[in-house]
Amino acid sequence: MRKSIATVCLSGSLSEKIDAAAAAGFDGLEIFEPDLTGSPLSPEEIRDRVAELGLTIDLFQPFRDVETVSPRAFEDTLRRAEHKFALMRRLGVDLMLVCSSVSPDAPEDDAVTADQLRRLAERAQDHGVRIAYEALAWGRRVHTYDHAWRVVERADHPALGTCLDSFHIFSRGSDPAGIERIPGEKIFFLQLADAPALGMDVLQWSRHYRCFPGQGSFDVAALVRHAVRAGYTGPLSLEVFNDVFRQADAARTAVDAMRSLIALEEDAGLAVLPTPPAPTGFAFAELSAHDTGPLRALLGALGFARTGRHAHKPVELWEQGDARVLLNTSGADRREGPALAAIGLETPDPAASVRRAEALASPVLPRRRAADDVPLDAVAAPDGTALFFCRTGHDDHPDWRTDFRPLTAPAPAASPTGVTGIDHIALTQPWHHFDEASLFYRSVLGLETDPSLDVPDPYGLFRSRAVHRPGSGLRLALNVAPAPGDLEERPQHIALATDDIVATVRAARNAGAALLPIPANYHDDLASRHALDPELLATLRESGILYDRDEAGEFFHCYTATVGRVFFEIVQRTGGYGGYGAPNAPVRLAAQRTASGLHP
Amino acid sequence: MRKSIATVCLSGSLSEKIDAAAAAGFDGLEIFEPDLTGSPLSPEEIRDRVAELGLTIDLFQPFRDVETVSPRAFEDTLRRAEHKFALMRRLGVDLMLVCSSVSPDAPEDDAVTADQLRRLAERAQDHGVRIAYEALAWGRRVHTYDHAWRVVERADHPALGTCLDSFHIFSRGSDPAGIERIPGEKIFFLQLADAPALGMDVLQWSRHYRCFPGQGSFDVAALVRHAVRAGYTGPLSLEVFNDVFRQADAARTAVDAMRSLIALEEDAGLAVLPTPPAPTGFAFAELSAHDTGPLRALLGALGFARTGRHAHKPVELWEQGDARVLLNTSGADRREGPALAAIGLETPDPAASVRRAEALASPVLPRRRAADDVPLDAVAAPDGTALFFCRTGHDDHPDWRTDFRPLTAPAPAASPTGVTGIDHIALTQPWHHFDEASLFYRSVLGLETDPSLDVPDPYGLFRSRAVHRPGSGLRLALNVAPAPGDLEERPQHIALATDDIVATVRAARNAGAALLPIPANYHDDLASRHALDPELLATLRESGILYDRDEAGEFFHCYTATVGRVFFEIVQRTGGYGGYGAPNAPVRLAAQRTASGLHP
Repeated sequence: MRKSIATVCLSGSLSEKIDAAAAAGFDGLEIFEPDLTGSPLSPEEIRDRVAELGLTIDLFQPFRDVETVSPRAFEDTLRRAEHKFALMRRLGVDLMLVCSSVSPDAPEDDAVTADQLRRLAERAQDHGVRIAYEALAWGRRVHTYDHAWRVVERADHPALGTCLDSFHIFSRGSDPAGIERIPGEKIFFLQLADAPALGMDVLQWSRHYRCFPGQGSFDVAALVRHAVRAGYTGPLSLEVFNDVFRQADAARTAVDAMRSLIALEEDAGLAVLPTPPAPTGFAFAELSAHDTGPLRALLGALGFARTGRHAHKPVELWEQGDARVLLNTSGADRREGPALAAIGLETPDPAASVRRAEALASPVLPRRRAADDVPLDAVAAPDGTALFFCRTGHDDHPDWRTDFRPLTAPAPAASPTGVTGIDHIALTQPWHHFDEASLFYRSVLGLETDPSLDVPDPYGLFRSRAVHRPGSGLRLALNVAPAPGDLEERPQHIALATDDIVATVRAARNAGAALLPIPANYHDDLASRHALDPELLATLRESGILYDRDEAGEFFHCYTATVGRVFFEIVQRTGGYGGYGAPNAPVRLAAQRTASGLHP
Repeated sequence: MRKSIATVCLSGSLSEKIDAAAAAGFDGLEIFEPDLTGSPLSPEEIRDRVAELGLTIDLFQPFRDVETVSPRAFEDTLRRAEHKFALMRRLGVDLMLVCSSVSPDAPEDDAVTADQLRRLAERAQDHGVRIAYEALAWGRRVHTYDHAWRVVERADHPALGTCLDSFHIFSRGSDPAGIERIPGEKIFFLQLADAPALGMDVLQWSRHYRCFPGQGSFDVAALVRHAVRAGYTGPLSLEVFNDVFRQADAARTAVDAMRSLIALEEDAGLAVLPTPPAPTGFAFAELSAHDTGPLRALLGALGFARTGRHAHKPVELWEQGDARVLLNTSGADRREGPALAAIGLETPDPAASVRRAEALASPVLPRRRAADDVPLDAVAAPDGTALFFCRTGHDDHPDWRTDFRPLTAPAPAASPTGVTGIDHIALTQPWHHFDEASLFYRSVLGLETDPSLDVPDPYGLFRSRAVHRPGSGLRLALNVAPAPGDLEERPQHIALATDDIVATVRAARNAGAALLPIPANYHDDLASRHALDPELLATLRESGILYDRDEAGEFFHCYTATVGRVFFEIVQRTGGYGGYGAPNAPVRLAAQRTASGLHP
């Protein structure tokens, strides 16, 4: 289906919004009138610019408070409408959105509303304009889509139809199935938005917290299916009011928006995309550092052995069990400390993973490699991390490890500490793109997202959301700082799995690994919260190990000191524990602040 | 009354919080347990640090989910409580907050709850601890303060009392008058918070949007009066969960908190402060610039005459009507453009204004002046602007203008353009301190605050709130950017009053003033919104004048180009128009973006 976007979804001037929508591949636009009013471009210049970019203007919006008990006010409305019809002709748009009235003067009687809408439609028709009447969720009298449709049906004018908006429908708890009772040709327009489940005033919810389909809690795909079954053939158009999008880069938001509509079409069964061959685990984590000394020392103490060097690049491979860490000195910024640059994901079909990413408007990274290197397909995640699709140790696909030459003079053999693999990786997301990240990992990689949690840091609340593939070892934790700025530069971390955390910690510590000191107050509190075996508690206290449990099992974890922007976690899961020790995160954050010397 | 603050109100480590509370003059603390758990300091070290600073720990909180239908869970709770009683002894605190249970296992029967609380109180008494039981607004069974009190009364144990929390009481819509039916000695503690009126889930409201008394919509003073009449003699203690405070500087938040309690005591009739001799108008606006050339050119074109030079400082006085602008080159940063540095406020009694500010923990600025200068009293506003208290042209007080020497060789006489005075001044507030600013202007200066508005800028939503003195010419607009960072550096502006804006604009333009171009689309839309006289509309369009009206009158306004961080507005009010043209603000912001070349 055609894909459109309302200018209010994007930040910047009207020109910037138009350019961003075109660059992201949209077919059409809704012009939100205040964007036009503040623009130095004339309606004709806007019309020409839109046409030049291959776009159409599909809707002019909003026109408010038509229906009224006051005949005089209605005459004034008709006068106002004549101005807007003339403006629409200059813009080259023939569909106007009319929202149900929020005025105390809205008529009690549907007959009055229908009559006034019919009279407005008659005037519109004279100008070649059609009217799409929409129920605002907070409309005074008309606030459900079926009520709006009854009024339109009663008015019975060819230039009058209804506009359906998923926010207004779901936020009132209406059943979208009733859409199928509306003749498709009378559904003049379909506006789509999602929203997180927030128990709050619906007007505030609508104005500040909408998001793109797939980023909230509404079943927008079901609504689209109903509209298509009713015979709707117009565009799928996004109308999202969101405080964060208002500040974010328009071009990037437009791509996020486009990805949302493509995934929505798939969810609604309207398009078939390449299936996501969801990743099953981690092939490697790649750290980038100008000076790899501190990382090499830490990896060695953690029991990793340096096992190979890349044939053509300054990259080393370090391994322990199935945990593999690459140290890369190319392209690292001398002024910044080590950082996580890339993740290798195990996937059954790397080429299919890339096709999926391409179909979902995700940035596929160019393959830069020497002629005899194994080809590695990669996409950029929303935080800039490169995600490589790998197939390690299978005969049906080249193995990326063949690019690494065994070391002729191996480093002094490290003693393994019992690390078996990578349990999860935690990434800090850019503040303006947390919802984009969730949608990316779900739609492009086919992962499942957990609910978002608030985590108190001494200097603000973080939000954290895990994405994972059920039944596999693939888990990512996405964190976002409370506000743009310093806190965005939070460390990222690699969690290493072990089957015996006490032994692993003891061995690592003996080998010189610097671990994060945990306050004694934490273990005092732990003793009150859980009736733990005193000997176990003493061991946890002594080793700086944190503890959590859920219905399925237990979780033990501890942290290394931070090197640059990176630290390691060591984790042991027992039973089917499915979390990440979230209750302990505030203690870890406070301990990291203490360790950094940032506060006493 | 004693003044306390919960550590959760402040950002940083527990040490930072304690230091900030002491520096702001608090008497005591509530220790929020997670702050302790994350601290590297032992309970004894915390106790000693608190004592050293002359503070006491008044409350340990929170202890959760005591009441339960499961006898086994209750035994576990008693075990958990024993740990906490031991911890409280180490901390040196003898009062524990117990919140009503939010668990589905909370008993239906008050008798069970009362029995369990009594048994907990018996254990507490053995440790010299008392229990303050509080109804959470979202408690499973007990969620009103009167219910909590009935349970406490029924339990009837000397170590058991109730804790009242203004947020939980007002957010449920309870009538605080019933507090007077509780014996004062059974009100063990009083936690105070305010909150803006937000129709949202009460738990989210509580956790993210509380603010200090006087910064929200609750009548906290009335609640305090009821508690005092009931015989409560404990501390007034602030407990505020707020996402912004979590990020802000603790020392500054603590002073804001202290000011809130001092003003609350006055509102509740518990303390008498020096009366605020509310300002009646503007004596002057002072601009600071390294290079005053562009400002001199602009002031000249606007019809201001340079009338004096300060006797001892590099400051010029420019005047037109009652509008006075000072240009100050001392202390201006060479790299930054002109900025608003100070405002002179007309007050009937400058010394009393300063006494009021001092009583409300506001930073009184040192008088730096030569021996024969007129003494000028000043305080720093929350955004750093110096506010001078002036009494211009009255025999009962020295006139600040006497420090300015008439110019021996006056500048070429400018032609007045009809400016009569300063209508209002708009200040951009630091993002973390918008609520602080409202309270400051209301409590320290005795002004009234209007509701806060959202104003869309092309790159995010601004919040804007006016403060004014009814019936006087004193109006300030406080604006805050959508997020910390670049947008905080928004221009500030001085609005100049005229009785004939068309003539003023024509004269200023003829004299070379650069005015902000307003898009033609704005005036096209204006024609649709109001049936304005076509000739008037043509004049507004030609002159770039914006228009608004309310029930009482009309408002005409336009803007100069921006110089550094400063621009001027020219405004004409007719009738009793009381606003600031807020509906036009998005157009002005977009036009300024266009003019800045920041976007097409």
